[in-house]
Amino acid sequence: MLKFNEQKKIDSINGALALRKNIETIVDDIHSEGFKNVCWFGIGGTYASAMQAVVHMKEKTSLEVFYESAAEYLTTGNKRIAEGTIVIISSVTGSTEEMVDGVKKAQKAGAKVLGFIDIADTNLAKMMDYLVSYPENEQLKFFMTADRFMYKSGEFDDYEDKYAEYDKHLAKALVEVEKDADSFAECFAKEHNNDEIHYFVGAGNQYGATYSYAMCYWEEQHWIKTKSIHSAEFFHGMFEIVVRDTPVTVYVTEDSQRELSLRVARFLPQICANYTVIDTKDYDLSGISDKYRGGISPLVIHAVNNRIDVHIEKLNCHPMDIRRYYRQLDY
Amino acid sequence: MLKFNEQKKIDSINGALALRKNIETIVDDIHSEGFKNVCWFGIGGTYASAMQAVVHMKEKTSLEVFYESAAEYLTTGNKRIAEGTIVIISSVTGSTEEMVDGVKKAQKAGAKVLGFIDIADTNLAKMMDYLVSYPENEQLKFFMTADRFMYKSGEFDDYEDKYAEYDKHLAKALVEVEKDADSFAECFAKEHNNDEIHYFVGAGNQYGATYSYAMCYWEEQHWIKTKSIHSAEFFHGMFEIVVRDTPVTVYVTEDSQRELSLRVARFLPQICANYTVIDTKDYDLSGISDKYRGGISPLVIHAVNNRIDVHIEKLNCHPMDIRRYYRQLDY
Repeated sequence: MLKFNEQKKIDSINGALALRKNIETIVDDIHSEGFKNVCWFGIGGTYASAMQAVVHMKEKTSLEVFYESAAEYLTTGNKRIAEGTIVIISSVTGSTEEMVDGVKKAQKAGAKVLGFIDIADTNLAKMMDYLVSYPENEQLKFFMTADRFMYKSGEFDDYEDKYAEYDKHLAKALVEVEKDADSFAECFAKEHNNDEIHYFVGAGNQYGATYSYAMCYWEEQHWIKTKSIHSAEFFHGMFEIVVRDTPVTVYVTEDSQRELSLRVARFLPQICANYTVIDTKDYDLSGISDKYRGGISPLVIHAVNNRIDVHIEKLNCHPMDIRRYYRQLDY
Repeated sequence: MLKFNEQKKIDSINGALALRKNIETIVDDIHSEGFKNVCWFGIGGTYASAMQAVVHMKEKTSLEVFYESAAEYLTTGNKRIAEGTIVIISSVTGSTEEMVDGVKKAQKAGAKVLGFIDIADTNLAKMMDYLVSYPENEQLKFFMTADRFMYKSGEFDDYEDKYAEYDKHLAKALVEVEKDADSFAECFAKEHNNDEIHYFVGAGNQYGATYSYAMCYWEEQHWIKTKSIHSAEFFHGMFEIVVRDTPVTVYVTEDSQRELSLRVARFLPQICANYTVIDTKDYDLSGISDKYRGGISPLVIHAVNNRIDVHIEKLNCHPMDIRRYYRQLDY
């Protein structure tokens, strides 16, 4: 398989899962000290991950939990971020200006910041009240943190049981998804690598990823136009431009909003002959109980998308690390 | 001027402003009874208006204020909507299924619902705990309600002063925008009525309207492809697909996020020769003080967009009330 190092992926996921003890210590400390609300905070891709953490939590929690864009916080502000707020961020390089300034402002307002910063030796990492430093697996880190908050609030009785399964089976299950998806992904890439524009539709804990996959992968890294839309919003305007040959991909998850995406998948054949449904249910996820599958739907779809990316990159002779403008020009 | 009835528009806006006494009575009653949080609730276009109300309030308020999609609420739920929640909705026909079911669910959870329902004689209208029935002007109704909540919370000292200006000058100011914008709008329509795809960029209290103008007008009513993006997010991926001929329109408002859109407007000339900046500052708004201009930026841009729509409709020989699928098919 092209660009696929199975052992490296397994180690990466298992390493992320092993952060759980560390995360538990942090969240349990926060819980003992008391807190008022939780703010998932980001920009671009990390903003999208923040959206997903909030949807994930809303399924169960009564806590006040929200997401905030760093850029909007720096301009409009948010008075709910104050003494007692736990701000949670993720950053690879630690160098995104809005994130550094946003963290400063939140701390000045009295918030404490828990950061997943891939590189520990950065100014942003040093600013954290609570730091976890480990590469990649952003969404999994966020979900582990979210789940611990809910467990401590008495809203997640089977937390231990779920993570016992994940610890044992998740890494292997996800690399199997990549292997199972590879031939589909190659066909899909051949069908769509030349699309003028591609539509991505998703909901629930996959909506943020639908937004960021379209923007941060196809637009930013493949230079292919996209539009992403929430499955429920699809019927409130956007679908009017879909005709026979419009390329549309619907992500169907197994979380609480599955039905919203299935509705799109059921409707499309009436008006479109160029649609694809990517349903997490089609993947085995051996060892993971039905009730815990929904919580990892974005990781499953991420695994499928990884394979699509590798094939599009090759077909288009366009290395994904080239940027026209991002960090190339002043703006 | 094509399809322009000045007096009718003035009467419509003044009629909406005259709802203020009614809105004040309702909000003051809610305030005396006590409430826990405020949820702006919608789907499609009304979801977008809900986003705008939240940004508008975040500039000043410490209240817990959030927006919720009706479809997401019906699937994922939201435990913050409970006893003490004031849910605020807007609906023209009162017939959108998700809104009817969402209101039922919120009321069952203990929330009270304040509805702006254009047609009073609908089941949805009859379900309201507090009803205001008057056609159109959705955003203005929302802003008036938001402002009264903030005034009652001691967060809006110059409320009376601002509305004294609006009552006296807003209607006239907005029709003057339409008149001032008409020749620009005609040129813009001639440049862009045939676009393969058009990009709309906006922020702040205009972001929701940027999202819904792209989706509910160009896609739904003109059948032209679009993508909308928040001005801050533009630099986090999407801008990589912008080249010389990519049609991009940036909405620049006078609210707290003005600088985020100006940053896009300043950057675009480096990479694009087909961009347009629509800046509310270019419109006179006679009688409205500088400090109250930002609060009505979405109304100003709506007035400009009205003129663009009229010209595109004519040029494309495509009546805006035709739908391919919306309420035509089962879905």
